Amino acid sequence: MSIEDRIAALEARLQAAEDHLAILNLLNSYGPLVDSATAKEAGELWVEGGGYSFGIPDGGTKRLVAPDEVADMYSWAGHMNLVNTGCSHLTATPKITVDGDDAQAVGYSFVVLREGERWYLWRAAINHWTLRRTGDGWRIVERTNRTLNGSEESHELMRKVAAI
Amino acid sequence: MSIEDRIAALEARLQAAEDHLAILNLLNSYGPLVDSATAKEAGELWVEGGGYSFGIPDGGTKRLVAPDEVADMYSWAGHMNLVNTGCSHLTATPKITVDGDDAQAVGYSFVVLREGERWYLWRAAINHWTLRRTGDGWRIVERTNRTLNGSEESHELMRKVAAI
Amino acid sequence: MSIEDRIAALEARLQAAEDHLAILNLLNSYGPLVDSATAKEAGELWVEGGGYSFGIPDGGTKRLVAPDEVADMYSWAGHMNLVNTGCSHLTATPKITVDGDDAQAVGYSFVVLREGERWYLWRAAINHWTLRRTGDGWRIVERTNRTLNGSEESHELMRKVAAI
Repeated sequence: MSIEDRIAALEARLQAAEDHLAILNLLNSYGPLVDSATAKEAGELWVEGGGYSFGIPDGGTKRLVAPDEVADMYSWAGHMNLVNTGCSHLTATPKITVDGDDAQAVGYSFVVLREGERWYLWRAAINHWTLRRTGDGWRIVERTNRTLNGSEESHELMRKVAAI
Repeated sequence: MSIEDRIAALEARLQAAEDHLAILNLLNSYGPLVDSATAKEAGELWVEGGGYSFGIPDGGTKRLVAPDEVADMYSWAGHMNLVNTGCSHLTATPKITVDGDDAQAVGYSFVVLREGERWYLWRAAINHWTLRRTGDGWRIVERTNRTLNGSEESHELMRKVAAI
Repeated sequence: MSIEDRIAALEARLQAAEDHLAILNLLNSYGPLVDSATAKEAGELWVEGGGYSFGIPDGGTKRLVAPDEVADMYSWAGHMNLVNTGCSHLTATPKITVDGDDAQAVGYSFVVLREGERWYLWRAAINHWTLRRTGDGWRIVERTNRTLNGSEESHELMRKVAAI
């Protein structure tokens, strides 16, 4: 390869590694924002029109549209109760794959909640994220989240890890 | 340094950073595969002939040989009971060091299991992985896993973090 | 850009990505060191004169100075009781930002402790780290740690994630 070609190859490869780290930073910003009710900034981790789909306790699923519906959730009474008790929306490090201006990630998330002198796992879930590079950096396009309840739907989400 | 030498140095350094991220992806694939009973693919995270050594409840340790014995474990009745209840084999981000075509990692892992409306830590362990670059990407050569029970053996495994 | 400028840009960008990964390794060394009572090496994760500030059970906070006061804590009877029971000081992957020879990180940490056949979350906290490049690699300058108890102080620490 020519000098020019080797430099161009390095630039493209380094961009992908930087993107991986930037996405790790984006996903690891989520918890501290929502656990401190920093709602607007949390909603802005998504692209406008992006979505957050999750299972709800009575069965079925709900999809909130970013940024407003997502941000609004983080001022609901139920969420503020978690915030004031002491909680961590923990994003475990996912598998992340970058493909140009798009990316995907698959991994676990947990909600850790205080109860007296201890903390416990109030929620545990598997997630699939699609992400996109924007003028303001990487943002979430869709986050699909299902609790770990043994369902086929949760297992299908897990198996995406082999396809990304 | 000459232009040529600087480019060669960049190529070698970037390769090591990419390897670190690739190993992070490999280790973070494990949980979603085994928690969805995607057994064959889980076994193939190891090189052929690689091993997974772990402590067993009655004391003593067991070493399974990859890919078949490792994959078989993920269809055992005991494992399928975890899968159908709802679980996460969580790999906490380890310290990873890359040395050419070999690498090592030391870090914690947990099994999170559903119990009614909550999840709890069914298992907590320390791990040492050796890894090797193959024609199909990075694979695990040996994974040594010991539960966090205060034993000298578990502490020795932890201390490897200072040596890698 | 000239060849020379492109190479210089690559060198600076790659350094920052390598720094991000080196800090991840530094922070992920902490748990296995302290959980195996490898106290001296744990204290040396900080620069000399660096500090570890954390909340104490009776309210108020304490700041230990590195390396000696920090290392000493990991041989206190209370700590040795955790080590001998079986525990994990788990550092969840934080958001990390590098700015030349300085860096910051914000993220969660947990202490997982064995109780009979299970493990539970004995402690859950939010952390802000400042870090500095030294001749021996990256080291912690200050670690500020507050438990997740719903306090305004813990929420302020979380909100730093939007500022780093």
